[in-house]
Amino acid sequence: MSTPHFGDRLITRVREIGHPLCLGLDPHLALIPPLFRRGNMAAADPQTAPAVEAFLLAVLERVAGRVAIVKPQAAFFEQLGWRGVQVLDHVVAAARAQGVLVLLDAKRGDIDSTAAAYASYLDPGGALPVDAMTVNPYLGRDTLAPFIERTALGRRGLFVLVKTSNPGSTDFQDRLVEGRPLFEVIADALQGLAAQLNGPETGWSALGVVVGATYPEQSRRIRELLPCAPFLVPGYGAQGGAAADAVSGFVRGPAGELEGGVVSSSRATLFPEDGATDTARAWERAIDAAVDRAIGELRVAIAR
Amino acid sequence: MSTPHFGDRLITRVREIGHPLCLGLDPHLALIPPLFRRGNMAAADPQTAPAVEAFLLAVLERVAGRVAIVKPQAAFFEQLGWRGVQVLDHVVAAARAQGVLVLLDAKRGDIDSTAAAYASYLDPGGALPVDAMTVNPYLGRDTLAPFIERTALGRRGLFVLVKTSNPGSTDFQDRLVEGRPLFEVIADALQGLAAQLNGPETGWSALGVVVGATYPEQSRRIRELLPCAPFLVPGYGAQGGAAADAVSGFVRGPAGELEGGVVSSSRATLFPEDGATDTARAWERAIDAAVDRAIGELRVAIAR
Repeated sequence: MSTPHFGDRLITRVREIGHPLCLGLDPHLALIPPLFRRGNMAAADPQTAPAVEAFLLAVLERVAGRVAIVKPQAAFFEQLGWRGVQVLDHVVAAARAQGVLVLLDAKRGDIDSTAAAYASYLDPGGALPVDAMTVNPYLGRDTLAPFIERTALGRRGLFVLVKTSNPGSTDFQDRLVEGRPLFEVIADALQGLAAQLNGPETGWSALGVVVGATYPEQSRRIRELLPCAPFLVPGYGAQGGAAADAVSGFVRGPAGELEGGVVSSSRATLFPEDGATDTARAWERAIDAAVDRAIGELRVAIAR
Repeated sequence: MSTPHFGDRLITRVREIGHPLCLGLDPHLALIPPLFRRGNMAAADPQTAPAVEAFLLAVLERVAGRVAIVKPQAAFFEQLGWRGVQVLDHVVAAARAQGVLVLLDAKRGDIDSTAAAYASYLDPGGALPVDAMTVNPYLGRDTLAPFIERTALGRRGLFVLVKTSNPGSTDFQDRLVEGRPLFEVIADALQGLAAQLNGPETGWSALGVVVGATYPEQSRRIRELLPCAPFLVPGYGAQGGAAADAVSGFVRGPAGELEGGVVSSSRATLFPEDGATDTARAWERAIDAAVDRAIGELRVAIAR
C-alpha cells in the first residue's frame, strides 16, 4: 500500500480491482450449504461454529483477488456466542492475510469510555482488529469522538449510519427537523469530521456513511452534503436495490468510471440458489458465478 | 418466580429487594483492582480475560441477594475478543444461577434477519441467553420487530434507547420534529408496543426505555407518554446524575415507594477508590460499602 490512509486504500483498491463490490459475510445458519453443514446447525451447538468457519474460509478462498473488501456482519457471529466470535476472529485474520480490507458491520454506538471500548476494533494492537467498522449516530456527536480518535488520523475507517435501506428507515430518519429530514441533519453534522479525514492521495475521507441502495434520490442529496465521504451501500440484490440505484451517489472518477464507495451484496452472492449442494465442484461453480454476476452488474453500473 | 413475564419479574424483584439498583458490570481494564490484575492487562493479552472473569465473579459473589439485576456492558467484553465473550458467557451464567436478572447492555440495532440474529440473546435456547437487552431505534420500527418477537409475549425484556445520559444526546434526540423533540416522537412510536407487553401481575411492560438520570424533566415527560414502560436509568453516580434525579420518572407503587424501573450504577460502585488494593479483605469491604452507599441513596430517593 502506498499510503496508510483508509479512504485512499479503499478507493485505490476499488479502482485497481475495477468494481465496488463489497462481499457481505452474513452466515445465515439456515442457508449454509449442505456441503458445509454439521448436525442441525443450532446456534448453541458447538459443532455449528466450525461449520460456519469452514464455509466462510472456503468463500474467502473463492473470492481472493476478486473483491477489494469484505463485510462480516457481527450479528451472525455473535449469535453463536464466544465460539462465533472466535470464527469472526479467524475469518478477519484470513481476509487480511489475503490483502482484502475488512469492514466490520457492527453498528455500534455508546457513550464515552464504552464507545472507546467498542472503538478498539479499530486498534491494530486490539484483540480483533479490522480496517473499518459501522457506527450508529443516534446517541450524538460526542459518542462518535472515541471512534474518530481510534481512526488514528484516518488510518482506519468509519461508516456512520445515515439513511438505511429498510422500509422503516422513514420512521425517524426521514422526519422533518426544521424542514429537513433528520438524515440530512446527521449528514450535515458529519461534514467537518469527514473533511478533516480526507486522504492525501485520492481526497476520499476515512469517514464514510451508510446509505441504502433502495433510496437513490436521498443518496444524491447526501453526496451533495458529503462530497468526499465514501458510501457503504447495502440493500443491493436481496433487498431489491438495482445496481444503477446502488451507485446513484457515486461521482465520476479520474478514469471516467463512477466511484465513491462500495456496494455490499450479502445473501444473493453468498447463498446462490444453485449453491445449495453437497458437491464441492458444484458449490464452487455456483459461488464463482454469483460473484461474477454481482461484479458484472456493478461494472455496467459504474461505466454508465 | 410466580410469573414468567419480564416486566412482572423485574418490578416484583425490585419490590422484594427494596431498591432499584442495577449493578453495571463494565470491566474497565485500567480500573481492575491490583488484587485481580494479571500481566499488563492489555486487551489482546490472553491473560487479561481470566483476570476480568475472576474480578466479576468475585463482584457477583459480594452482591448475591443484594441486587435484583445486573447489567453487563457488551463493549468491555468484546474488546477482549472471543475470550472476552467467553467471560461474558460465564458471568451471565453465574448471575442467572444466583437468581439475579441479567440485562445485556448491547445497544444493538439492525434490519430484518440481522436484527433477528442479535435478538437471539433473548432466546433461552440461544448460545448466550439473557433476560433483557438494550436496543437502538434509529433504524426504524420495523427493526424492533424481531426483538419484540423474541421477547415471546414479554417473557424477556427490551430497553429501547430514547434519551441517553450524555451531553451530546441533545444533538439529534432533542431536535424538534413538528415542534416536539425526536425522543418524544420515538417514545410515542413505542406506546402501542409497550402497552401490548404489559405484565399480567404488575401491569409493567416487558418493553422498557433507556432514559438518562441527567435529564429529569425529560424523564417525567417520557413517563407521561409511556406510563407502563420500565425505565433503565444510566448516568447515576459517575456521570453526575443524583439519586433523586435518577428516579424522577418513577411513580408511586402499591407500598408507597417510587417504582418504575431500575437505576444503573457502574463505575462508581464497581470501582470504589478504596477498592484499588491487593488485599482481599480490604477489597471486599470497599465493594460492600460502595454497593451499600448506592442502595442507601436510592432507598432514600424512592421513599420521598
